[in-house]
Amino acid sequence: MKTGFIGLGSMGLPMARNLHRAGLLHAVWSRTPEKALALLTETGCRVCADPAELAGECDAIVSCVSADADLLEVIDAMRPGLRHGVLVIDCSTTSAEAARTADERVRAAGAQFLDCPVTGGTEGARQGTLAILVGGDAAAFERARSILAAMGRTIAHFGPVGAGQAAKAVNQIMVAGINQAVSEALAFAGAEHLPIDKLVETLGQGAAASWFLANRGPNMLRGTYPLGFKVRLHQKDLEICRRMAARFGVRLPLVEMTLLHYKRLLATAEQDEDISSLHRLKAAMFTGDES
Amino acid sequence: MKTGFIGLGSMGLPMARNLHRAGLLHAVWSRTPEKALALLTETGCRVCADPAELAGECDAIVSCVSADADLLEVIDAMRPGLRHGVLVIDCSTTSAEAARTADERVRAAGAQFLDCPVTGGTEGARQGTLAILVGGDAAAFERARSILAAMGRTIAHFGPVGAGQAAKAVNQIMVAGINQAVSEALAFAGAEHLPIDKLVETLGQGAAASWFLANRGPNMLRGTYPLGFKVRLHQKDLEICRRMAARFGVRLPLVEMTLLHYKRLLATAEQDEDISSLHRLKAAMFTGDES
Repeated sequence: MKTGFIGLGSMGLPMARNLHRAGLLHAVWSRTPEKALALLTETGCRVCADPAELAGECDAIVSCVSADADLLEVIDAMRPGLRHGVLVIDCSTTSAEAARTADERVRAAGAQFLDCPVTGGTEGARQGTLAILVGGDAAAFERARSILAAMGRTIAHFGPVGAGQAAKAVNQIMVAGINQAVSEALAFAGAEHLPIDKLVETLGQGAAASWFLANRGPNMLRGTYPLGFKVRLHQKDLEICRRMAARFGVRLPLVEMTLLHYKRLLATAEQDEDISSLHRLKAAMFTGDES
Repeated sequence: MKTGFIGLGSMGLPMARNLHRAGLLHAVWSRTPEKALALLTETGCRVCADPAELAGECDAIVSCVSADADLLEVIDAMRPGLRHGVLVIDCSTTSAEAARTADERVRAAGAQFLDCPVTGGTEGARQGTLAILVGGDAAAFERARSILAAMGRTIAHFGPVGAGQAAKAVNQIMVAGINQAVSEALAFAGAEHLPIDKLVETLGQGAAASWFLANRGPNMLRGTYPLGFKVRLHQKDLEICRRMAARFGVRLPLVEMTLLHYKRLLATAEQDEDISSLHRLKAAMFTGDES
């Protein structure tokens, strides 16, 4: 399948490269023309003038943009070129509602839509080891398999359009809570002058074990928080979770607490660090160094 | 070393049995004489009339009781029999302060004290696979090794007396947060009608992976929460964490939130279930079924 790619950001660019390696990348479009031209030089892919031109030339289009409004803008820009049977695979993280709206607009053109948000960060995007959480028609999912397999390792279908985004929201809520858990516990450990390295190793063998403790605990030991996953991006995702929960009239306690803490963190941070920098905020409680 | 055991509860009894298997168990004392007599029948160990008699006959005494006051009561009851060089190994979960008070009283008799709280639950106690978090003098720790190795698999020394309890507090804070994370995220997933089994499997391969998701997620899928680790015991441990943090003038947000949620949970639960029953409280937010 001739595949087009829209959105060459820190996730999109390595994902497009993996499509190229799999022999699937046909054309790209980027809001920043320099990014598209750089990929042309590197891969020889076509660079299109706009999303409609790209849609007109491809059997499948992968998009990876920032937020609800960006997705719908790209979909609308694609529509004049969308043909019957074309597959639109959106790897952005948006609300399930935005995915359903995009789906309606894509289906109106006779094309098919899948929401396919990913997890695994820029490292997973580069190595092609992303987890891809899919929502949409089962037959469309089968058609998309080779494209998804070029970008990710764990590919799971969760239900109709929107289910991929709902599953991603579940992941982001869980990561928020585990970040809270590891940050708060290790900040307390620091105040108690415990050897953090030994704690990370020992507690990682019992009921407190987590990927986050094993992989971000060492950041907290050193007090530096290299990326990873930016606080602002997780903040954006948790705001999506907040809106999705609000549809049920629910405020999720962990989500609310983490949004409050991220706001404080971003107000005092010099740069946008990894989400494990929440540890700095928690440690400041013990040193009275809160600002 | 002739080893005595005090406190034959749901943790202590299987731990004492493992000491017997290792040929170390000499004598026991229990507040409930029937428990001690049952172990006599099973193992042929001595049953002592009081902790002082037990202390007088043993080179090492392992205690496993409920809370700060219980520990200090047992230490005081032991003191008339405590001899120079005897090793007191306390496997209860108490505050670090109670451990330091116990240490002072034990040292006054010329004996040595180690705080050795454990994690791994009744299953770990039975199988001898507990993690044992040790605080105390390094030489005393070396003397205790064979006894600890008979009861646990991962044995780590964290510093002076109290450090074992501080490390245990770190573990309990982390478990509270991860329980919050998994419960809240899977309650949201339920409201979104996502397939929970597939979520547990897929999210367990990325940044949201945790022991708790893999081992307690299935409870949440079924809506039944078999033990495990009782809510009331975790509540007691988190109250210890609260007091320990209060020494720094700090209120730990996750600890406070979890204590509030456990209080609500215990007010409505018919029995004392596993801590993963926090999921029931979170799910009730979405069904409007909060009581």
